[in-house]
Amino acid sequence: MSVDRARVDEAAVRIAPFVHRTPVLRSHALDHWVDAHVFVKAEHLQRVGAFKYRGATNAVQSLTESGARRGVAAHSSGNHGAALALAADARGVPAYVVMPKTASTAKRAAVRRYGAEVTLCDDSLDARRAVLAEVLDRTGAVEIHPFDDERVIAGAGTAALELTQEVPDLDVVVTPIGGGGLCSGTCVAVAPIRVIGGTPRDRASTVADGLRTGCSARTKAILDEHDVEQIVVDEADIVGAMRVVWERTKQVIEPSAAVAFAAAHAAKLDGARVGVICSGGNVDLDALPWSSATSRQLRRSARG
Amino acid sequence: MSVDRARVDEAAVRIAPFVHRTPVLRSHALDHWVDAHVFVKAEHLQRVGAFKYRGATNAVQSLTESGARRGVAAHSSGNHGAALALAADARGVPAYVVMPKTASTAKRAAVRRYGAEVTLCDDSLDARRAVLAEVLDRTGAVEIHPFDDERVIAGAGTAALELTQEVPDLDVVVTPIGGGGLCSGTCVAVAPIRVIGGTPRDRASTVADGLRTGCSARTKAILDEHDVEQIVVDEADIVGAMRVVWERTKQVIEPSAAVAFAAAHAAKLDGARVGVICSGGNVDLDALPWSSATSRQLRRSARG
Repeated sequence: MSVDRARVDEAAVRIAPFVHRTPVLRSHALDHWVDAHVFVKAEHLQRVGAFKYRGATNAVQSLTESGARRGVAAHSSGNHGAALALAADARGVPAYVVMPKTASTAKRAAVRRYGAEVTLCDDSLDARRAVLAEVLDRTGAVEIHPFDDERVIAGAGTAALELTQEVPDLDVVVTPIGGGGLCSGTCVAVAPIRVIGGTPRDRASTVADGLRTGCSARTKAILDEHDVEQIVVDEADIVGAMRVVWERTKQVIEPSAAVAFAAAHAAKLDGARVGVICSGGNVDLDALPWSSATSRQLRRSARG
Repeated sequence: MSVDRARVDEAAVRIAPFVHRTPVLRSHALDHWVDAHVFVKAEHLQRVGAFKYRGATNAVQSLTESGARRGVAAHSSGNHGAALALAADARGVPAYVVMPKTASTAKRAAVRRYGAEVTLCDDSLDARRAVLAEVLDRTGAVEIHPFDDERVIAGAGTAALELTQEVPDLDVVVTPIGGGGLCSGTCVAVAPIRVIGGTPRDRASTVADGLRTGCSARTKAILDEHDVEQIVVDEADIVGAMRVVWERTKQVIEPSAAVAFAAAHAAKLDGARVGVICSGGNVDLDALPWSSATSRQLRRSARG
């Protein structure tokens, strides 16, 4: 069973009682900068500040009573952990989140505030997987992957579904691509509308911390099937787009969301009607990418 | 002729073709922080990023054809200059803005982008007044004061008028107070609803740069007549409130707007229905008040 439009429609009904139906924002200044008519699906205003809450909620609410009872688990340094914690809380089941010790205090506090048990580990994929395996073993919880999961992909697609319900005549929809969950869900939801995915040139060290991963076979297959056009953007373009959005639309968006705006800007869409899935707004206000200390760190990281 | 409700109603009709009817924002996290039901009138999403565009537009559109022809002028280091420039542009008349040399490049560029002629001067009130007098003399333009003007006060009141149209059963409305234009216009618009004005403890050196001024006899008389309760807030409370709004609502607001949120928080409104006029969102992203360099500067400034 693969992800099709019917599963996105089902997900939309399933999660409706739990998620915000986020607004679609317009801005003259943004239209001018992109040189197109831009419709921003404001998932930075979603609960937990990211579209991730849609997929986590769809997965958690899809579990059977007995399947859900022992809780859900994931490793995450970011939005998926917070989303899963709140989704589990909404169903009244436990959540276990494995986080690297390097995750900021603010991010750990957010996951704990939503009621999850946090287990810290070293910051390598191997360490995260090993500690998560222990947690699953100890608790009997169900693992919910941040993107390599059909329920999560279908849930992610509901943002674009709402956007096309509100703005039916879009020419193109632009999303960021990290693991490909948001972009593949969007493809399924809006087909046959053209989809563009923005992706950072260097995924390992990008400022767009939510995109420091690659597609799975599952998400890659969906992107290929829908002929998604990938646009590669540089770090300076990501930071520049983020700053344009903050200054001109007064919206706090995170670097991963800025990747979609940077891609829309680079795509030369020339007067088209463009939907942008603004994926999230969780950003460390003490380390903004245009502060000089952060810029130095990014340059070092890019060289290293 | 003083400012009464009829003049606010007239202003609302006069400026409607030019201004955004800004949304009213809600946030669970903000409700929790203020411990009340908070309705945010989002004037940071107004044109030029501030409520000031309402008053400037009402003043410029109130001028006779012959009165408007030679243009309008003001001295301003901030939002009033940009608002007047765009309001004049909308009527197709010249604008002359006197700005201190210390105004940021971004602010000067914004005023010029809206088509005004900018004259730089030294950063003292005497220097500003002297240079503005020369400009008025040379051009024959009409001076539009940023707050000590009945048309500007009536225009400012239209934000609260729209808020009460959308949320008719408010218990209290909170605004910042600098020159008192926004707060006095709000009083007139929403009477007999209770109005609270937040004001920084040290107006001369506050981080809330839009409030570094005092009321005029005209605005003070209106505030007194309506028994406005003034709540004094400290610098740390302003910065803290600004950060709460950025982090939890993902909205970029300026320190002057944060003064209203800080006052609402301090007022212990205990479950009331509270309107907050979020006055603007123009902030220098290179000098945020929680960055260490800016904090040092503020501490120095507070000592000096």
